[in-house]
Amino acid sequence: MNLKERLIYEGKAKKIFQHKDSDKVIIEFKDDATAFNSLKKASFKGKGELNCQISVNIFKHLIQHKIPTHFIDVLSDNSLLSWKVNIIPLEVVLRNVAFGSICRQTNIEPGTVFKEPLIDYYLKDDALNDPLITKERIKLLEIIDNNELRFIEDITFKVNKILKEFFLKIDLNLVDFKLEFGKDINGNLVLADEFSPDNCRLWDLRAENVNMRSLDKDRFRNDLGDLIEAYSEINNRIYNFNSSK
Amino acid sequence: MNLKERLIYEGKAKKIFQHKDSDKVIIEFKDDATAFNSLKKASFKGKGELNCQISVNIFKHLIQHKIPTHFIDVLSDNSLLSWKVNIIPLEVVLRNVAFGSICRQTNIEPGTVFKEPLIDYYLKDDALNDPLITKERIKLLEIIDNNELRFIEDITFKVNKILKEFFLKIDLNLVDFKLEFGKDINGNLVLADEFSPDNCRLWDLRAENVNMRSLDKDRFRNDLGDLIEAYSEINNRIYNFNSSK
Repeated sequence: MNLKERLIYEGKAKKIFQHKDSDKVIIEFKDDATAFNSLKKASFKGKGELNCQISVNIFKHLIQHKIPTHFIDVLSDNSLLSWKVNIIPLEVVLRNVAFGSICRQTNIEPGTVFKEPLIDYYLKDDALNDPLITKERIKLLEIIDNNELRFIEDITFKVNKILKEFFLKIDLNLVDFKLEFGKDINGNLVLADEFSPDNCRLWDLRAENVNMRSLDKDRFRNDLGDLIEAYSEINNRIYNFNSSK
Repeated sequence: MNLKERLIYEGKAKKIFQHKDSDKVIIEFKDDATAFNSLKKASFKGKGELNCQISVNIFKHLIQHKIPTHFIDVLSDNSLLSWKVNIIPLEVVLRNVAFGSICRQTNIEPGTVFKEPLIDYYLKDDALNDPLITKERIKLLEIIDNNELRFIEDITFKVNKILKEFFLKIDLNLVDFKLEFGKDINGNLVLADEFSPDNCRLWDLRAENVNMRSLDKDRFRNDLGDLIEAYSEINNRIYNFNSSK
């Protein structure tokens, strides 16, 4: 029996199908990769499966630490079952170390370690090129209210604390990451989307030179080497760590 | 005797000269106009004098309402004497109505009147194209501390209240404006720079059609008619209002 009733959304890296239960969806991870607001495009055989498996393990780890997420279960190598949510049109980016766009938008030296993690919000709007948005503008646009913004901020800081610690155990430095949140049918805010090297920066603490430290989408963005090799390395380290527990 | 000891700074629309007293400067207003990060340039004979006179009258009005400013006295048709300050590298923009960049950066309809005024901060950095900056990034870059940010925000809201009311009396709608702040030699934060139609949007409530309502730099930005005519109209209304008191 096919659980996928119909495609309800196709993004750059995922397809969302309606599940036969109206309050659930199936998330299928694609092999496609895009960067620089889709100016750069490619496809990497196996990326979908790797991102699915990494996301599943990260979601399970976060749920163990009481983070509310949309994740229900793994369905196949490249798909998972989740609660259906209305995605809040914000990209919530937490940075532990300055890298990428923030260095182009300020004069912060790449690699600067922040005393406190920084949260940046971006409006999810491809046509507008996902612009940086202030909290005051978020309120003005009535995207979410003050309580919801505080909840999202609180969860984002908690996710950082949990995952920074987790990745350190497998010799990875969590430089930054992007989260998305959604509201389930009961109106509860939960962590949604995915957590994969497509949406975070992970630097390999075992790397012998700085050019090979990126085990994330920067390999594709900046032509830093084989993307699948990097994503597999992350997936293997997570798998080995979980097996050894 | 020439009071101007030496040019210490030349900006797009003003020159700053060291005064013979080390704690004072002379601000001379230029006829030059730039827009779109200097992509569009022109010169309008008389603009310097008009902006100087408008700024002088606005600063005097604000000082009457207890706003701390760098203004000391008018010196000539196109120059004024002020306290020497270190400019904080932030453009503080208050918006009562959505127009210009915020509409390009969000999907807010131009002309939308905000329930509460919105303050946006931009990093003063020509090379970076003066990017929007969040309060969190301001703190991270250590541009100013929390107390100073609160002080600037408080003064900006007060300036809006005072000037919105003032301009309404002469049939002008204060749509938005940009302020800059500086620290004087005693470390006090004061309103600095200028207040002129170069740095605010003023819509004429007497205008019979919407295309002629802009009495500000949008005339130059968007080729909406004679800039000097518009700036003169503002200057005359302020002059007539002050004369009638």
